Amino acid sequence: MTDLMIRDVRPHGGAAVDVLVHDDAIIRIAPGLEAPAGATVLNGQNALLLPGLIEGHGHLDKTRWGLPWRRNAIGPTRDERIAHEREYRRDGSHDAEGGSLRLARAYLANGMTRMRSHADIDTEIGLRHVHATMRTREALAGSMEMQIVAFPQSGLVIRPGTEDLMDAALHDGADVVGGIDPCAVDRDPVGQIDALFRLAERHGKPIDIHLHEPGEMGAFSLDLILERTAAASMHGLVTISHAFCLGMIAAADRDALLARMARWDVRIATTAPASIAVPPLAICRAAGVTMYAGNDGVRDTWTPHARPDMLDRAMHVALRYGFRRDDELEGALACVTSAAATGCGFANYGLEEGRRADLVLLDAESAAEAVVSAPPRRVVISSGVVVAKNGVCLV
Amino acid sequence: MTDLMIRDVRPHGGAAVDVLVHDDAIIRIAPGLEAPAGATVLNGQNALLLPGLIEGHGHLDKTRWGLPWRRNAIGPTRDERIAHEREYRRDGSHDAEGGSLRLARAYLANGMTRMRSHADIDTEIGLRHVHATMRTREALAGSMEMQIVAFPQSGLVIRPGTEDLMDAALHDGADVVGGIDPCAVDRDPVGQIDALFRLAERHGKPIDIHLHEPGEMGAFSLDLILERTAAASMHGLVTISHAFCLGMIAAADRDALLARMARWDVRIATTAPASIAVPPLAICRAAGVTMYAGNDGVRDTWTPHARPDMLDRAMHVALRYGFRRDDELEGALACVTSAAATGCGFANYGLEEGRRADLVLLDAESAAEAVVSAPPRRVVISSGVVVAKNGVCLV
Repeated sequence: MTDLMIRDVRPHGGAAVDVLVHDDAIIRIAPGLEAPAGATVLNGQNALLLPGLIEGHGHLDKTRWGLPWRRNAIGPTRDERIAHEREYRRDGSHDAEGGSLRLARAYLANGMTRMRSHADIDTEIGLRHVHATMRTREALAGSMEMQIVAFPQSGLVIRPGTEDLMDAALHDGADVVGGIDPCAVDRDPVGQIDALFRLAERHGKPIDIHLHEPGEMGAFSLDLILERTAAASMHGLVTISHAFCLGMIAAADRDALLARMARWDVRIATTAPASIAVPPLAICRAAGVTMYAGNDGVRDTWTPHARPDMLDRAMHVALRYGFRRDDELEGALACVTSAAATGCGFANYGLEEGRRADLVLLDAESAAEAVVSAPPRRVVISSGVVVAKNGVCLV
Repeated sequence: MTDLMIRDVRPHGGAAVDVLVHDDAIIRIAPGLEAPAGATVLNGQNALLLPGLIEGHGHLDKTRWGLPWRRNAIGPTRDERIAHEREYRRDGSHDAEGGSLRLARAYLANGMTRMRSHADIDTEIGLRHVHATMRTREALAGSMEMQIVAFPQSGLVIRPGTEDLMDAALHDGADVVGGIDPCAVDRDPVGQIDALFRLAERHGKPIDIHLHEPGEMGAFSLDLILERTAAASMHGLVTISHAFCLGMIAAADRDALLARMARWDVRIATTAPASIAVPPLAICRAAGVTMYAGNDGVRDTWTPHARPDMLDRAMHVALRYGFRRDDELEGALACVTSAAATGCGFANYGLEEGRRADLVLLDAESAAEAVVSAPPRRVVISSGVVVAKNGVCLV
């Protein structure tokens, strides 16, 4: 039983208050609180206080974070990247466990306390990446809450044996059923989507599908997914990651799909990529669809880009959608805080009394300034424990 | 007469060499050089060596860099932003001189040694911003080479008196004739464009026009500009900044314009914005058009975004164009190095013997890694003098 009193912090940039944490929970938020006897006191020095940041779409297992630079000369198509990644792994030297732990700790140092991480499954690597990600989750238990998606990166139906591996991953503790481009990768949309919903029903798990498919192809896959979401009554249990097609098709068709997504509370995760169409954030939110953000891969064979910092991702959201006003920047921040908690289904979240004490202290005047300047995280607290200081992970 | 021997650095990520600098010039680049008697020796410790970075499109005079956060609640249109900026300045408290110097020093600390900065001119502020930028240029003389653009932010023809102010600015030492949206802002394309070429001819200066105009409107303005460029034989002396229209119009129309741009060596400066169409970089380069990059405003009343770091801008170029391979990332870096030198007409540039010794040492394996990770600049040398170390400006 421990008490932590955090003095003089400004939640979301508002007026300065004290925050009393007992064990892993926020007990009181108010100015001029009296510290219980024996409480540890932390002087916030008027820091901005944010809730723990959330990575809504990551790939810990793929990363080469912390390793020497690796020259990338891969062709530009998705299939070339998938094939290259499989080849890269074939010599067995890729260390999914070490890499995922290094990257997760870098994220934690930047205030990310909850994440959804997709772990590759295919008929060559089997469950190696799922189990590696699980060991990283265990190593950081109590400091980071992690959902693991059983993700058929190389296709599901097209590689017989993958569905059984997915089934085994979910049995072993994966939290989410992953999918990918039912038309473009599997070339059998009904086959893949039916398999995903079969797995989801059997294990009582939500679904998160990578949908890179463009235009009308993506819209067709989305249509099929929505049909099965309704049939299975999976209200609030399906996420479409990327959903580029919603930024490509005619507005009337898009709005019809958004209305169905809102009806079944199907969420969208975006990386807000600068080089391709994206679902229109303001229109999606106005339609009642929860939209949140993630980095996708960080420094892996797919991409050299991205940083293990959710404020950086919020900045990219802001840039992608042309957000400049403070209220818009706060909307970008929500993509890696409250909307991501809703979208991924992380309970007990936020700067409110009774919620889990996942807290980030940083030097910024406002939430908007934090998004554009991404200053170092002075203190990161996870479940009531200080886990990082001045950008250094203590776990 | 001073000699500086820089040992063990890797130009553009190549093999390690020594670099001998005499006064402001690179004298020798080779492995195992002998240091002249009395030379200062700097151990590069196998750093990546890049040429001084170039800001191809900046607005030093507008910035609030280093000042407290200012809440932004401005409407989204260009006209609202122009009007708000004028209003913001009306109380006279905006310190263009102090701001421009703070921002320029922050840039220098990140290895930017040459820049083109647009300085606002209008009938309310007169030449105040031009002269403020000139004083910053004087303060940093020898450490930073600066071209100043006489820029009619609020319009030229539409605000009578502006052309005379532009004329006076060029007389006082501005280097480039600036323009803005001849149709959309001035509502008189021929009037503005003729005035720009009149000023250019009278003062023997190049032209740099902000062209935000979309689609066919922008293409029409560009057509008129190219017509006058040819008539005035201003080969290699005209830059189109932004040129969003080239990312919007039909490919055949775009290619016809690019062919004319290549014929007259008309250049393109881009900020590679994520939220709007951009000229296609690979296609522009293949057509023979020089394309380079700039940050545009940094932390001003127009935008809260951007950082005084040209590696950061190169990263945004890479993200905007979907560059992931090392050769592509090197192409993004060229937008803030060699292509920017060509585009702005900065002479005596590059990592070659005889060129001015503007050098940046940083910890990265390759140019590609420098673009994606933007590590701190360990040492910055400008005209043969160390001007920054470990991110701290010494000037």
